[in-house]
Amino acid sequence: MPTKKLPAALAALATALVLPAAHAEEGMWTLDNLPLAHLKETYGFAPDGAWIARVMHASVRIEGGCSGSFISAEGLVLTNHHCVEDCVGQLSTSAHDLIRDGFLARTRGEERRCPDFALDRLDRITDVTARISQAAQGRSGAAYADAKRAEIAHAEAECEKGGPAGTHCEVVDLYHGAVQHLYRYHRFDDVRLAFAPEYDIAQFGGDPDNFNFPRYDLDMGIVRVYENGRPVHPADFLRFDRAGAKDGEMTITSGHPGTTRRQFTVAQLERVRDVDGPWRLTRLAEQRGLVTRFMQESPENARVAKEALDDIENSYKSWYGQLLALRDPDVFALKRREEGALRELAAQRPALKDDLGAWDEIAGAEADWRTLAMRYRFTEGAQGAWTRYFEIARHLVRAADERTKPDGERLPDYKTSQLAATEQDVMSSAPFYPEFERLKLGWSLAKMREWLGVDDPLVKQVLGRESPEALAARWVAQTRLGDVAVRERLWQGGRAAIDASDDPFIRLARVLDPESRALLKRVEAEVEAVESKNAERIARVRFAQTGTGAYPDATFTLRLSFGKVEGWTHDGKAVAPFTTVGGLYERATDFDPFRLPPAWIAAKSVLDPDWPMNFVTTNDIVGGNSGSPMINRAGDIVGLVFDGNIESLGGAFWWDERSNRTVAVHSGFILDALEKVYRADALLAEIARRP
Amino acid sequence: MPTKKLPAALAALATALVLPAAHAEEGMWTLDNLPLAHLKETYGFAPDGAWIARVMHASVRIEGGCSGSFISAEGLVLTNHHCVEDCVGQLSTSAHDLIRDGFLARTRGEERRCPDFALDRLDRITDVTARISQAAQGRSGAAYADAKRAEIAHAEAECEKGGPAGTHCEVVDLYHGAVQHLYRYHRFDDVRLAFAPEYDIAQFGGDPDNFNFPRYDLDMGIVRVYENGRPVHPADFLRFDRAGAKDGEMTITSGHPGTTRRQFTVAQLERVRDVDGPWRLTRLAEQRGLVTRFMQESPENARVAKEALDDIENSYKSWYGQLLALRDPDVFALKRREEGALRELAAQRPALKDDLGAWDEIAGAEADWRTLAMRYRFTEGAQGAWTRYFEIARHLVRAADERTKPDGERLPDYKTSQLAATEQDVMSSAPFYPEFERLKLGWSLAKMREWLGVDDPLVKQVLGRESPEALAARWVAQTRLGDVAVRERLWQGGRAAIDASDDPFIRLARVLDPESRALLKRVEAEVEAVESKNAERIARVRFAQTGTGAYPDATFTLRLSFGKVEGWTHDGKAVAPFTTVGGLYERATDFDPFRLPPAWIAAKSVLDPDWPMNFVTTNDIVGGNSGSPMINRAGDIVGLVFDGNIESLGGAFWWDERSNRTVAVHSGFILDALEKVYRADALLAEIARRP
Repeated sequence: MPTKKLPAALAALATALVLPAAHAEEGMWTLDNLPLAHLKETYGFAPDGAWIARVMHASVRIEGGCSGSFISAEGLVLTNHHCVEDCVGQLSTSAHDLIRDGFLARTRGEERRCPDFALDRLDRITDVTARISQAAQGRSGAAYADAKRAEIAHAEAECEKGGPAGTHCEVVDLYHGAVQHLYRYHRFDDVRLAFAPEYDIAQFGGDPDNFNFPRYDLDMGIVRVYENGRPVHPADFLRFDRAGAKDGEMTITSGHPGTTRRQFTVAQLERVRDVDGPWRLTRLAEQRGLVTRFMQESPENARVAKEALDDIENSYKSWYGQLLALRDPDVFALKRREEGALRELAAQRPALKDDLGAWDEIAGAEADWRTLAMRYRFTEGAQGAWTRYFEIARHLVRAADERTKPDGERLPDYKTSQLAATEQDVMSSAPFYPEFERLKLGWSLAKMREWLGVDDPLVKQVLGRESPEALAARWVAQTRLGDVAVRERLWQGGRAAIDASDDPFIRLARVLDPESRALLKRVEAEVEAVESKNAERIARVRFAQTGTGAYPDATFTLRLSFGKVEGWTHDGKAVAPFTTVGGLYERATDFDPFRLPPAWIAAKSVLDPDWPMNFVTTNDIVGGNSGSPMINRAGDIVGLVFDGNIESLGGAFWWDERSNRTVAVHSGFILDALEKVYRADALLAEIARRP
Repeated sequence: MPTKKLPAALAALATALVLPAAHAEEGMWTLDNLPLAHLKETYGFAPDGAWIARVMHASVRIEGGCSGSFISAEGLVLTNHHCVEDCVGQLSTSAHDLIRDGFLARTRGEERRCPDFALDRLDRITDVTARISQAAQGRSGAAYADAKRAEIAHAEAECEKGGPAGTHCEVVDLYHGAVQHLYRYHRFDDVRLAFAPEYDIAQFGGDPDNFNFPRYDLDMGIVRVYENGRPVHPADFLRFDRAGAKDGEMTITSGHPGTTRRQFTVAQLERVRDVDGPWRLTRLAEQRGLVTRFMQESPENARVAKEALDDIENSYKSWYGQLLALRDPDVFALKRREEGALRELAAQRPALKDDLGAWDEIAGAEADWRTLAMRYRFTEGAQGAWTRYFEIARHLVRAADERTKPDGERLPDYKTSQLAATEQDVMSSAPFYPEFERLKLGWSLAKMREWLGVDDPLVKQVLGRESPEALAARWVAQTRLGDVAVRERLWQGGRAAIDASDDPFIRLARVLDPESRALLKRVEAEVEAVESKNAERIARVRFAQTGTGAYPDATFTLRLSFGKVEGWTHDGKAVAPFTTVGGLYERATDFDPFRLPPAWIAAKSVLDPDWPMNFVTTNDIVGGNSGSPMINRAGDIVGLVFDGNIESLGGAFWWDERSNRTVAVHSGFILDALEKVYRADALLAEIARRP
């Protein structure tokens, strides 16, 4: 780690660790704690407060797991195609397939609102560590979790009350609970699609090329943010640098990495490797096979299930890559050595002796998790009810209960700060496709029977003496939750309306909820509270080892990463950092996923084959960073982050300096495509306009 | 282990190991080395030579991975329904679905020959350790493997030449190469279906109940063995004991456990846990989803793909259970301690010091395997060509080459001793279902592209610029390998005919073969030869620890296991050892896989609800034991082994005395079903008849 400074006492230990050599590019830095000295030393780069504030205010977080940036004075936001794909799909019909054909609003009037889409701009960071830890002090298990949750809810509510309309506040646990910061956002939930390219160029190469390089994608989408029916005028936005970055040039990403587990204990990593990861991967694999065949049955099925398959395949490969790292004996050995060094430090320092038990307490919690996991998956995890109908039904059932409680006692989705977003999900106008819902539900009910067992009381209560597939067909035929008005009545009607409903999914949600809530409580008290409390203790030891110069694990909050354009070596072969437009045309075939859209076939002669298209950098990113602007030291866009290579997936657990790479669309290629292929003159003019 | 005797010097070590307490039931014993002293002591049971010979000659091995036993003087063989399911499916048509409806030959003339089915009866065991090790002495790597293979082929050929027609000889590596025995079998390849129940009762509960208990299956099938067009008259066969075994009574299985890895090193177990197992499981999961949806499309699709899905689901659950054991931190810690004790012993004894490097050499081989595995899977493993057309094509291409070589240099399937079986596979009259073949092939070609990469030269050579699905459709439409006469001409025509063929699958086999063979050689030299040579060294250390009283890991050769009828405790609840016919009717619903066949609904009133149906015992079995007779000390059949509980799957790696259970059909229930439900009077009379 760049700024890690080992206390002298640990020098001997550290050399024995054979840690990977410190590398300039590691780190996902919070904006209040950038490695300024290191940046100056390594890159001669000294961003001032204004630079940082501008980048912060021009960056946005997209609910559901993406990043983006304002790129015009009138509220245009740039992100990835795969980040707006759900919206594009929801706006499509069998007659107008916008996924296939793409979309361009030639006027503002043509922009179309995304049914459920919200984004947050970070306005302020406040340290609230003291008040949170004071509230939870001396408690453990459920009492610890309850006290912490109540104080967090209190801080968030206070913050929201104190801010203007649209203020959204979240307390973030950093360093696994050692530090709490209050992030104040401005939330925008009227987001309209302005531009999306055709799927075949946006995600050219599809799953086979995903997480791979060389790459040839225009994985971009542009939305416009509205408020009170009018485009917003952000104070800060980013400009394009058409020339982009050269090989070796410094690059900066500003985005929202979702989750990393670099500070997990060995027991926690074993849980991921042996329990959670394999479960997820095999489930995704089976879903993938099921949906793949469903899509082969008709063009309409293919259209209807496309985003679902994309999500499944993306998660599948992501988990595969993560497990590949965890199953590498060298990576695990490294983690064991790192943990050994921390334990030794704790044992040696009198002030840390009390923290020495932390690792074993976490290991005990993970052993408990192994006994709870399967039931948790099929109750709170709802893995037996894979259908949007159930997601909506559970929100309705739970909202009716939760809204009657004080904020600090509510489940997260129903806290005041989240309730509007939950309501937006429930009332979404996105269409339903009953045959696809039937497929997913029938399959997942069968999984519930398979994994909890035929003789399980909950399984018997859900299935009765029916087959999962027959039940799924009946329920999907009976439900009226496809009708927004019905949902509206149930949302407004509260508990009485829920109790009176005989909708099959409302019934199912009622049947699952008692055990679901009971398990949620147990997992919170027996696993999560233990992890969180002991992670605080370990963080104390780690601070003693590395000082405050370390960065916290990713938390889907704004981070900057610093790297440079650079290829790498894969299987002994050098991979060049840039691909070109000419390479795209060479790779194209007549078949999905290497087929080009008609507009791109037509545009071949007007595009420069030597123009750069995609490129790789050494920036440290993970999932959640999709859509992040890649900027130069002037703060101008040189690229659009849309992927990492397969080696980058191990970045969830450790930073592999040799081969971890970020994949981006070149800024000049974006402008070229808008100009020469789509003739999006109005958009281009707006993007080029100064404020 | 029952007969394990620790040298005095190791007593202290052993107590430190916290090994599971020695348990009477562990062990899969070769017939030349039964634990006679232990049997006498524990059960007061002293089988004499005649008893052993009779059981040996009454037992049969079914090619493809099952066991069975002669049950009449005129060649009837009892095995599981799931062991004859392929045959039953191959004899079915869309008009006559024998899987669904079952089959009963009321006369011998109605018996129907299984298209590819062979079984072996063991006649003699000879120790050939000395000649094999002498031949390979002083060699390593490829030279070691070549010398061993040549000498083995020589011994087998000699044995076959020396025996009567139908003699089939195999050298078996026991104790991972420390001992070689020559097994002389009589092979029968004219096997005809006499009886199979309806699928819905044979495999009642289907996948949800598979590897579970309580259980309610009539998982049986009866075939008759012919030779020269007439039923064979085995000298030995087993009789039924209608009363079966009582709770606590001793039970013996005689069958062919396929593979165990109880003597694997930690590095080898890590390979299974981290490389091979996860790959298999996720692939099976995706295949399962794909085929599940294919079967939902029409009743004919459901019929066509049923056995394939059954195989997939069975393997899936088997791998799941195995990985569950390997992912249990306690099991792995036990294995580490066991290995540590062996290493320490080797370090202490001067005579064993040379063997101390064995574990690290194996670890090195496993590291090599990690780098070779993916290419091996898609070349030699043929995982990109999941279709029967390719299996046939590769046999034709390889047979043409291999038959021109001396026996000792041939690939195993084409050695003289196996050539007839391979030819039977190639010429099988089992029907093809082009749509299903298209599905499998298109999917698997896409997997090849996914895992080797779009830019891989071999992938490019196979796919060209086409999509996997389009290519699969074209190849399946073009191939003429569905026609037995075409296969016959290619088999007879040798290399010239193969070279002249433009069949797409012959072409594909030719394209894959060079790299496939090269990798086979590399894996043999760099991985398998290293494992085998060093396993011999470890076996020497283990002999020094345990004496010769241990049993070798399973090798799909005849073994006896000794246990008793006994329930167990699952999740804190006692599981009773017997289920009854009444329980079957309670569990039945109107839906697959808990639907009863019409004959069983009709027979409800004539069956005794208290009659035992299935039961569990503590016998030590694994996959391959399916169809094994379960006998009492008199050598009479008290049950028919068809499954283990989910805990038994960990038996691949260790013996869990607390919960590892064998699941069997009760002998009396088999007779009752034949009599009262099927009125199979002729079969019953023959079974009851004395020789």
